Amino acid sequence: MKAINVDFAKTEKYAPETQYLQAKENVLSAFKTLTEKTGAGAEFTGWVDLPVAYDKEEVARIKKCAEKIRKDSDVLVVCGIGGSYLGAAAALDFLKGGMYNFKTDGGPQIFFAGNNMSSSYIMDVLDRLEGKDFSVNVISKSGTTMETSIAFRIFKKALEDKYGKEEAARRIYATTDKQRGALKQLADSEGYEEFVVPDDIGGRFSVLTAVGLLPIAVAGGDLDELFAGAQAMREYALNTKFEENVVLRYAWTRQKLYGMGKDIEIFANYEPDLRNIGEWLKQLFGESEGKDGMGIFPASVSLTTDLHSMGQLIQDGKRNIFETIIFVENALRDVEIPEFDEDFDGYKYLEHLPVGALNLAAFVGTSDAHEAGNVPQIAIGMEDRSEANLGQLFYFFEFVCGISAYIEGVNPFNQPGVEEYKKNIRKILAEK
Amino acid sequence: MKAINVDFAKTEKYAPETQYLQAKENVLSAFKTLTEKTGAGAEFTGWVDLPVAYDKEEVARIKKCAEKIRKDSDVLVVCGIGGSYLGAAAALDFLKGGMYNFKTDGGPQIFFAGNNMSSSYIMDVLDRLEGKDFSVNVISKSGTTMETSIAFRIFKKALEDKYGKEEAARRIYATTDKQRGALKQLADSEGYEEFVVPDDIGGRFSVLTAVGLLPIAVAGGDLDELFAGAQAMREYALNTKFEENVVLRYAWTRQKLYGMGKDIEIFANYEPDLRNIGEWLKQLFGESEGKDGMGIFPASVSLTTDLHSMGQLIQDGKRNIFETIIFVENALRDVEIPEFDEDFDGYKYLEHLPVGALNLAAFVGTSDAHEAGNVPQIAIGMEDRSEANLGQLFYFFEFVCGISAYIEGVNPFNQPGVEEYKKNIRKILAEK
Repeated sequence: MKAINVDFAKTEKYAPETQYLQAKENVLSAFKTLTEKTGAGAEFTGWVDLPVAYDKEEVARIKKCAEKIRKDSDVLVVCGIGGSYLGAAAALDFLKGGMYNFKTDGGPQIFFAGNNMSSSYIMDVLDRLEGKDFSVNVISKSGTTMETSIAFRIFKKALEDKYGKEEAARRIYATTDKQRGALKQLADSEGYEEFVVPDDIGGRFSVLTAVGLLPIAVAGGDLDELFAGAQAMREYALNTKFEENVVLRYAWTRQKLYGMGKDIEIFANYEPDLRNIGEWLKQLFGESEGKDGMGIFPASVSLTTDLHSMGQLIQDGKRNIFETIIFVENALRDVEIPEFDEDFDGYKYLEHLPVGALNLAAFVGTSDAHEAGNVPQIAIGMEDRSEANLGQLFYFFEFVCGISAYIEGVNPFNQPGVEEYKKNIRKILAEK
Repeated sequence: MKAINVDFAKTEKYAPETQYLQAKENVLSAFKTLTEKTGAGAEFTGWVDLPVAYDKEEVARIKKCAEKIRKDSDVLVVCGIGGSYLGAAAALDFLKGGMYNFKTDGGPQIFFAGNNMSSSYIMDVLDRLEGKDFSVNVISKSGTTMETSIAFRIFKKALEDKYGKEEAARRIYATTDKQRGALKQLADSEGYEEFVVPDDIGGRFSVLTAVGLLPIAVAGGDLDELFAGAQAMREYALNTKFEENVVLRYAWTRQKLYGMGKDIEIFANYEPDLRNIGEWLKQLFGESEGKDGMGIFPASVSLTTDLHSMGQLIQDGKRNIFETIIFVENALRDVEIPEFDEDFDGYKYLEHLPVGALNLAAFVGTSDAHEAGNVPQIAIGMEDRSEANLGQLFYFFEFVCGISAYIEGVNPFNQPGVEEYKKNIRKILAEK
């Protein structure tokens, strides 16, 4: 596996290496706080060692269940919200392509539900089950997350109506707390297959637990390769000396740019299939750093698509932004530009070129343009869309996030602001 | 048709009505600049009168072609980027639901291509055509937009391979310049059905021209109702006196908040199907206002989904944000929360309640929570997801955008920054 490459050339003007080297003590202090588990939220740092310490027996069981689901189901409905679906959704698109659900070969269709309160959406998913065999993976640590619970009620009912209670129970996979909670109790009493949401790993860091792994395995993703990638990046992050450690340097660079008034980080990619990586990143960084009246605002764009929507502003708007670009060198599949007799569009000179070459030219050309427009940029390059690279990528950003939030001076692992609206909803509904 | 409702109660603390009334001269000056076509970019204000002045003959022809496509095609591929696809994509999801392409009843599947340089994506769309009858709508004023031209080459080739050149030409619909350009020339010489991208309407304001109308009609959207909604909103925007005009007040409020350091506008909705409305809004406002080193950064969230990702930051992060919420009262379809014998999740008290009622509670509860978190909010309420309401919504935001950009002091209708990256790409490719 080739290591992912991080390029700071286009932040050098704003956050030069010399300043990074001077910040050694500060950065290493954050590093120690994270790795020695001495900081705020230390009880939620189980993800740091997860790539080597994961429960092998459980992962074997996940693979077995995934095989069963692939055999007995045309559709898997995954009920979960936030960290209980974003990682898997990002992984599916990255590994299998965003049109995965239109394919008729390969594994079952996978629809994510329980991540909204939209009746239209739930009905749309119900329609997809018409005449199909299906299973449900419900993911909730407490079992009382409202969006997920409501959707689960509906899909549990659909299962029981179709298969009867007993067979329905064999088609429900509960990813939940190891010992307590409403879903744990239900799973025990109805005999669902159970997987664990660990106590020491928060939702947004949970993609490499059963939360993400079961849906990824059902789609045919190679879990061993995913862990191999995460292991390699963990090894790198923990053991590369400060001066050469791009994980630490990226974390420092983000906070340095934030301190200069660069309030918005735009996560850019060059593949529509990476859109959900952007969504996953928005949760990871937004929820970890957006607190105590502080935090970089995370946004995402898919290029070149969004150069025709957000491009003008990125090039020429308020200079309160910086960009982190993820570029994958090799597409899942490439296609050549076809030949025609006449040069009706002025692109005859591009005939027989693979479209991937254009995408690379677009990345380079855009990066230069944004540099001219004074947008600091960190470029993250990776060879292909393999599980190993994805494992690296997930771990890379998680580690960056932990360090970055500790440099910012906040607890990376809590989310106190998420409770406020939930309390209000419960109050409104109780009054009904 | 019920008028869409705009509520400023939760901006009153930041941008009070009394200050709005004092800004009368300034706001009306922007209004005059726009409607009397005296400002920068005035040559691109054709959209202001479009709802009444549109080409009736052409719209009749669009309907006829849509009928033909619905009859002879299982799939329509729409090649276009930026304003040449975002409006139609937003409309399709709003009117027909984001899972439209999974439905087997109703009109043809509609896939948008030509809006990226992703070979994987293009291959995925090509796969969707396997064994299917299909047509292509290519949308480009110049006919040389690289993303669109490259995709069009590929789908034109696929058509010709399948049907031969003559029948392929009958399955290509060109939306382009009235008189000149590469695509216009090709369409003339090969005999495509042609529709017009007007000279006086820029891409991001073009959803109610043939650019948006043909795909919308193919999906079964009612164009007359769409225009009726836009007409009603135009009438309202032009003729409602300043003191009561919510279009003008919203435009002023945005700039007032921006002046107070609220640099980021989050467009929030409560339906996954409205996600592309958010994308359309990002182009509309980002490209119109993000220039000359200024501009509000437009972002979007789908709630309650993203309360579990961006919610923490919105509630508790840096106070440089404000929210514009679009809430639709009636879902396309509603579903009841089913009954079970046991109260396994603590939600037995919600049994038989429609999920839509929960979504409304979520909207109210979240809005109160964000108010407590000092997030200024503008709430836009609409009755349902009808064409008439969508027409209102499109025109509402277009008019707001024109006024708001003139108040900001920029030309709302150019996008000089978009050229920079294109020049670079051409240079790189020419050197190959």
